[in-house]
Amino acid sequence: MTHNVNPHTSARPGDPVAAIDTPALVIDLDAMERNLAAMAAFAGERGLRLRPHAKTHKSAAIAKLQMAAGAVGVCVQKLSEAEALAERGVPDIYISNEIVDVGKLARVAALAGRVRLSIAVDSPTGIDRLAAALKAQGTRMDVLVEIDVGHGRCGIAPSSAGELARRVESHGLRFAGLQAYHGGAQHLRSPAERQAAIGHAAAQVRIAQASLAEVDVQCLLVTGAGTGTFALEAASGVWGELQCGSYVFMDRDYAENHLDPQPPGGGHVAFEHALFVKSQVMSVGAAHAVVDAGHKSHAIDSGMPRVWQGEFEFRNGGDEHGILTPATQVDASRPPLPTIGDTVWLIPGHCDPTVNLHDRYIGVRGGLSQGVVESVWAVDTRGCLT
Amino acid sequence: MTHNVNPHTSARPGDPVAAIDTPALVIDLDAMERNLAAMAAFAGERGLRLRPHAKTHKSAAIAKLQMAAGAVGVCVQKLSEAEALAERGVPDIYISNEIVDVGKLARVAALAGRVRLSIAVDSPTGIDRLAAALKAQGTRMDVLVEIDVGHGRCGIAPSSAGELARRVESHGLRFAGLQAYHGGAQHLRSPAERQAAIGHAAAQVRIAQASLAEVDVQCLLVTGAGTGTFALEAASGVWGELQCGSYVFMDRDYAENHLDPQPPGGGHVAFEHALFVKSQVMSVGAAHAVVDAGHKSHAIDSGMPRVWQGEFEFRNGGDEHGILTPATQVDASRPPLPTIGDTVWLIPGHCDPTVNLHDRYIGVRGGLSQGVVESVWAVDTRGCLT
Repeated sequence: MTHNVNPHTSARPGDPVAAIDTPALVIDLDAMERNLAAMAAFAGERGLRLRPHAKTHKSAAIAKLQMAAGAVGVCVQKLSEAEALAERGVPDIYISNEIVDVGKLARVAALAGRVRLSIAVDSPTGIDRLAAALKAQGTRMDVLVEIDVGHGRCGIAPSSAGELARRVESHGLRFAGLQAYHGGAQHLRSPAERQAAIGHAAAQVRIAQASLAEVDVQCLLVTGAGTGTFALEAASGVWGELQCGSYVFMDRDYAENHLDPQPPGGGHVAFEHALFVKSQVMSVGAAHAVVDAGHKSHAIDSGMPRVWQGEFEFRNGGDEHGILTPATQVDASRPPLPTIGDTVWLIPGHCDPTVNLHDRYIGVRGGLSQGVVESVWAVDTRGCLT
Repeated sequence: MTHNVNPHTSARPGDPVAAIDTPALVIDLDAMERNLAAMAAFAGERGLRLRPHAKTHKSAAIAKLQMAAGAVGVCVQKLSEAEALAERGVPDIYISNEIVDVGKLARVAALAGRVRLSIAVDSPTGIDRLAAALKAQGTRMDVLVEIDVGHGRCGIAPSSAGELARRVESHGLRFAGLQAYHGGAQHLRSPAERQAAIGHAAAQVRIAQASLAEVDVQCLLVTGAGTGTFALEAASGVWGELQCGSYVFMDRDYAENHLDPQPPGGGHVAFEHALFVKSQVMSVGAAHAVVDAGHKSHAIDSGMPRVWQGEFEFRNGGDEHGILTPATQVDASRPPLPTIGDTVWLIPGHCDPTVNLHDRYIGVRGGLSQGVVESVWAVDTRGCLT
C-alpha cells in the first residue's frame, strides 16, 4: 500500500517558531506539561486511577508522558488506534467502545496477546462474539459493561448490567467493571447543568451496581468522566477511574464552560491552551484578511477557532481559508488588519478532530513568540477509523 | 519521518462489497465514470476547457481519468497538493489560490521546472515574491490574477485587474487570464439566486476585462465555476474554462440544490452519488441504533450525511458514532431499527473534506449491493495543508 503522508514536515527540531511553515499543528510543550502534571496531581491526591483518553492526542509519545506522570494506561475508541499505539510501545490500552464485527474481534483477540487490553460491551451479541474470538486465539482480556448514563448513544439500560455481566462471566471472561461516560454533560456551560447531569449519571451507576449485586457480581471499577465534569465524578465517590482527554490541550469549546464558583472537592484545576494552529495571512481585502487555514486545518464541529492574542473574529472561509475581521472598534492608532505574511495563531474549537487532520505535531519549547522547536511527533493514530 | 498511515486497508481487489471493513470510503466506479463522461461531454460540446478541481478527490488516479476524458489539467488549492500530484504523474496543474510565503514560493518555482504549472495572484507582494523565486530558479509559469466576483474571500477588486496584470508582465511573467470563482454561489438553493449571483460575477469579470483593456493587456482566459453553477458560467460567454470538482462524486449538499426548470444552454447534466461511507451498526438502544461512523469518517461542515436507501435520520454522535432513528412512521410489517452488524451506507454532506479524512478509496464495480472491489487507491493529497 502506498504511503500518502505529506513528505514536507513544517519544521525541524532547532528551528525558531518563526520558521514553522503554515498551516501547522503546534504544541506549547511547557503548557502541555503543566496540564499533564495538574491532572495527574488531581487524580493522585484523591486516590483515583487516571486513564486519559488517547482519542484526543492520538500519540504514543504523549501517552507515554501521561503514563510516566502516573496514568495506569490510556483509552481509545477504535481497534486500529489500539493496534497503532501497542505497536509503538503503549502497554495498557482500554477500548472504551463496542466492537461487534467478527473480523475486527479476531484482531482484538490477537492484540490481547501482545499488550494489556480491555474493552467495553453493551450487547449479548457483542459478548458472545468477543468470547468466541478470544477462545479461538487463546487470549484473555478484561471486559467492562457500558451503561447509558444519560448521553443516549451506546450502553445498555443500567438495570440490565447484571444480566450482561453474568453473560460475560458465563464465557469465563473477567468482568472488570462499568463504563459510565456522559459525553453530553461535558460541554453544558453552567456548573448547575453539569452537576445535574453527573448527579443523574451517578444515580444510573448506582442502579447498575444494584443490578450487579442482585446477581452476585462484584463491581470492581466504574470508569468514565471527561475534562468538563471530572471534578464532579471524582467527588461523587462512585467513579474509580477518570478518562479525561482534552485537558492535555484544552480547546476553545472547553474553555467556554463556566467555572464552578464552589468546585466539588475544593480547588479549581486550571488547564491552559496548549494546542494551536499556526496560520499565515495570504490575502488582504478592504475590510478583511484571509489566512491559509480553513476547516481542513481545524475541525469546526464545535464551532470556529478563536484567534489567540489578536483582536479578530474568525469566520469560516471553507476548507483552505479563514476570514479575519476586526473584533472590536478599530483603534485609530494601529492598523485594523494584519498584512500579508503575518502569523496568526488559532485555538481550535475542538482538539480531537483537529489533531486528526494533521500528520505531525510541532512541539515548541519557550512559548509561541520566542520559542524553539523541540520535537516533531507523528500523529500516530490519525485516520485510524476501523 | 515516521509514516503514520493506518496499515489496515479496508478491502482488497476482488473482495465482495460485504467484506469491506467499516468505516470505509467507497466509490461506486460505474456512477463516477458516468459523472466524468457527462461533464466532459458538457464542456466539449460547448468548446470550453475543463480543468476539474482536484481538491475534491485528492487523487492522481482520478485526475488522470479526468484528463483521459478530455480535461486540460487539474486545479489544486495548495502547493503540497501540486507537489504530490506532480510526483504521481499529473502533468498540468493550476494552483487556483494565492501563495505568498517566500519558502513556499521557492518550492513553487522548483516545481515549475518539472510540470506545466500555473498559479493565481491577488497582491503586488505576492507577484513580486513569485517573480523573484522564478528568477532565482530560472523557471517559468503562467500567472492568473484573481478577482473577487462576489464570494468576499481572496481576489482583488475587478477594477484593479489591469494594474496587477501589468505588474505581472513587468517582471517578464506571462499573464494568462483571470481567476473568477464564486464559491458562495454554489450552494444557493434556488436557480434564481444562483442566476443572480453568477450574473453579478459575470459583470465583475467584464469590469476586470475593461480594466485590462485600459492598460492594453490581453485577457486570454477567464477560469472558474463549480458544480452548482457551471451551466450558468458556460452560458454567459464570459468563462472559457470550468473548474468544477464535486461533480465527480456529488454530495448530499449539492444534491439539495433545486434544479433549474429552464437550464441555461439547454438540458440538465445529471450527476449521481458516487461516494459513500460504508458503516456498520455497533449498538442498538430502545429507540435508536448506533453506527461506527462519526465525524472522523465524514465531514459535517455542510451538515450530516444522508442514509442511502434506508429510512433513517442520521444524528451526530461525535467523532466515532452516528445515531440512527426511524425517519418515517414505523411500518408495523418491518423492524423499525437495524440490528447489530447491519451495513448502513452514508452519503457525505460535503465530499472534499470527507475524502480528506481517509487514507484510501475502495472502488467498487457492479453496485453497492452485489459489487466487487476493483481498485484501492490512495488519497494522495490527504493532509496536504501547506
